[in-house]
Amino acid sequence: MILHTVCFTLAHEPGSGEEQAFLDDARRILPAVPGVEEFTASRQVGEQSDFRFQFAMRFADRDAYAAYDAHPDHQGFVARRWKTEVAAFQEFDFVPLEG
Amino acid sequence: MILHTVCFTLAHEPGSGEEQAFLDDARRILPAVPGVEEFTASRQVGEQSDFRFQFAMRFADRDAYAAYDAHPDHQGFVARRWKTEVAAFQEFDFVPLEG
Repeated sequence: MILHTVCFTLAHEPGSGEEQAFLDDARRILPAVPGVEEFTASRQVGEQSDFRFQFAMRFADRDAYAAYDAHPDHQGFVARRWKTEVAAFQEFDFVPLEG
Repeated sequence: MILHTVCFTLAHEPGSGEEQAFLDDARRILPAVPGVEEFTASRQVGEQSDFRFQFAMRFADRDAYAAYDAHPDHQGFVARRWKTEVAAFQEFDFVPLEG
């Protein structure tokens, strides 16, 4: 199991219609890509970071993660929305610690 | 619900006994603090970040989070272990996005 996460801040004004549209579209498009499990969208509220949002999703394994990454719906969202509407982001991927 | 997370890298050599002892002690001490739910310890495996580990835990609300933060077992762990054994860290806190 791999938990893929990305913290981000949008270029849009907080509370704007553009912000809402980005969040709505992401929550419609990304969880529908095959292999995505337990998609969550969150506000980042910790004072130690300036990031304002986070998406998180689980994949069964690296193959499922790679298939998502290469899927046209994901690639299209990245090309048409992410690259123009996201001001800053940081990805982290987690696997449960054994032992 | 608040998901409290911290990504970190230890001062210890990867794979060392000191690393294992820190991870073991944290996983024994922190989940036992009242209010901590669904404690997880993970390796950070994403290539976009140098952080090597992550702890995550859920709290019912901000009061539960504040009680954890102030609890002697948490404060003691921070003072005796975190401050001396952690080389770098970044906290993020998440609340589910509505609407």
